[in-house]
Amino acid sequence: MSNISLEKVRQAITLMQGGDIDVWLTFARETMQTPDPALDLIFPHNLTWDSAFLVSRSGRSLAIIGRYDADNVRKEGAYDDVRTYDQGISQALREAVAELAPKRIGLNYSLSDTGCDGLSHGNFLRLQQMLGDLAELASADELVRRLRESKSASELARIRETTRMQQAVYAEMFKLPLRGMNELDIQNRAHEIIARHGLEIDGDPAANPIVNAGPESSIGHGLPSAALTLQPGMVLHFDMWLRHNGYCADLQRCAYVLRPGEIKAPDLVQRAWDSCWLALEAGKAALKPGVAAWEVDNVAREALVECGYDEYLHAFGHHIGRATHDGGSVLGPRWERYGDRPFKQIDVGSVFTLELGVILEGHGYIGIEEMVVVTETGNEFISTPQRELRLI
Amino acid sequence: MSNISLEKVRQAITLMQGGDIDVWLTFARETMQTPDPALDLIFPHNLTWDSAFLVSRSGRSLAIIGRYDADNVRKEGAYDDVRTYDQGISQALREAVAELAPKRIGLNYSLSDTGCDGLSHGNFLRLQQMLGDLAELASADELVRRLRESKSASELARIRETTRMQQAVYAEMFKLPLRGMNELDIQNRAHEIIARHGLEIDGDPAANPIVNAGPESSIGHGLPSAALTLQPGMVLHFDMWLRHNGYCADLQRCAYVLRPGEIKAPDLVQRAWDSCWLALEAGKAALKPGVAAWEVDNVAREALVECGYDEYLHAFGHHIGRATHDGGSVLGPRWERYGDRPFKQIDVGSVFTLELGVILEGHGYIGIEEMVVVTETGNEFISTPQRELRLI
Repeated sequence: MSNISLEKVRQAITLMQGGDIDVWLTFARETMQTPDPALDLIFPHNLTWDSAFLVSRSGRSLAIIGRYDADNVRKEGAYDDVRTYDQGISQALREAVAELAPKRIGLNYSLSDTGCDGLSHGNFLRLQQMLGDLAELASADELVRRLRESKSASELARIRETTRMQQAVYAEMFKLPLRGMNELDIQNRAHEIIARHGLEIDGDPAANPIVNAGPESSIGHGLPSAALTLQPGMVLHFDMWLRHNGYCADLQRCAYVLRPGEIKAPDLVQRAWDSCWLALEAGKAALKPGVAAWEVDNVAREALVECGYDEYLHAFGHHIGRATHDGGSVLGPRWERYGDRPFKQIDVGSVFTLELGVILEGHGYIGIEEMVVVTETGNEFISTPQRELRLI
Repeated sequence: MSNISLEKVRQAITLMQGGDIDVWLTFARETMQTPDPALDLIFPHNLTWDSAFLVSRSGRSLAIIGRYDADNVRKEGAYDDVRTYDQGISQALREAVAELAPKRIGLNYSLSDTGCDGLSHGNFLRLQQMLGDLAELASADELVRRLRESKSASELARIRETTRMQQAVYAEMFKLPLRGMNELDIQNRAHEIIARHGLEIDGDPAANPIVNAGPESSIGHGLPSAALTLQPGMVLHFDMWLRHNGYCADLQRCAYVLRPGEIKAPDLVQRAWDSCWLALEAGKAALKPGVAAWEVDNVAREALVECGYDEYLHAFGHHIGRATHDGGSVLGPRWERYGDRPFKQIDVGSVFTLELGVILEGHGYIGIEEMVVVTETGNEFISTPQRELRLI
């Protein structure tokens, strides 16, 4: 992991040039219980006691770490200066801030961007007490957002590897005797395959992968049901988000279960699949550096509605990297719950999911999700896209 | 999980009687990325969009959940009223708060207690905007602390089960051909054993289990080294924290590697082991309902110092439950970094680790860690304690 932490600390210093944050402070404790997603970028292990990572615009990087965690920070090698304490962090932290003499300290909080909102409110109040007389405390959300979004070469390589592995998992899942299996059985078998491939399930295994067998299934982040068995005429839909080596992939896959005598999906189903792809390609064509995130969603959304379907009730895409939902901008509509995230501009080097779907009465949920990386002029697939609806 | 969520919601209502919090609000989003440890007690799955769980002193329980997460909350069955939204949570949340008409809303933030500090600063600012005109926003840390600490019967049963399973893992680890293996090899083999027993590693597997072979090893939360091989005369020390079915165990185990001709550990090593146990038993005898947490630490700390050893630089014990370091009070000294946690009183039903150790020059780290549950009159072991130093 050392290369990535060091790459990201250096990238942060570059991003701070010309900005109004003099020192970026990541402050965390008991990160197993309350992790800070920004910390993952610049130190990949857990910390127990109060820990402070300071990166200054002038190019210094400094960590203040409890005695028992300090060795790991030194081994990581991303900080020029690692200081330790035993009883309490405040004195060493005040001294370090006094040395760096910032006007403004950027902290990891954000009203709209979870990936930049890892500082707890309790820790914010403590920093106010410890440092409030030394500098102005402000949000570092723009810095952290850009740091998360713009993937370094080694980050991109890891995402590609996880994506390749997840596709291999899907290939095995479609070899299962799926007809007649219930959603929960399918999920259990998927868990075995995932473990065998050496991938980690990101988050709660009870809800990952999502398995939707037919029209009665719970669409969204619902749990699989042992009462729903895959039958002819149903659409089978999977959504899965996995991690390997610290980086995630997130893809959906879909199939139709042929009824006796059928050799292809009914027109109703095929038309929905084709319309989803038409809308996805329309949105994909709009994704390039400099456009606002909501515009990309809007193109896909309108294309699907023009095909005669309801608009999907989620975003067209999200960043992916260390986390599956990786904060930053979102390719989503300008709805309240997305805050200002749809208004951000697209940057080169970002990795997005592109996803949408249609609920088909009597059949189930048709959903597509692929992954792309933003290039100088547009974007290209990271995943090998599922162009054809599978038949079972 | 349903029983525990419902048990804990009911327990929260009971704990709120007589207090000054009218409504307890847990507010979270993207909990895979930024989990709230208090949410785990009352809803065991991840949530993606803004989600609000309200428990009122008058006995109502109400959840406001994004459309795609709502089914899971309904299935969990711990809330009387589950409301959904599509575009943004604020209107439904304001309506719910207006109905409940609290004077004071308790939120999950705390200056000293990580287990009660899951609300991000960004989300705090948003709640101020959404609800600041309707009620006073205050810390719910005392409520959450007591809710975490006092284990229900089904919670205690799960902790016992995880402890039993972790002991079985240790038993297998001591069957490995440990002599001559390096720390990293030992950790890799431990990971296989843990997986085979169906336990999850809590947090970063690179640092769990801790494996310390001899005096050159990094004491504390350090990573194992491939350069350190287990040799005669060394102390081998393990520390491991595992989870099963949502509940954790955390135990240390120790052994001495006999040199040619030795049939027992040298006096220096044996005396350190015996002194650690003497100090641990002294601290254990002081642990009962009503005493202040720091007093328990102080008894153990002084007993070890009286034996002629340095005082340990950590707390004598921490709560354990859903998390390994489970917030709440801490059996620790009145040092700055523990905040007000050592000043809290011990409650019945709490589960604590008891741990301490001695660094022995030329041999390595002697460490003991066991687990106890607080009863009406004292406490009893949950783990089967390692009374004798193992010989390898």
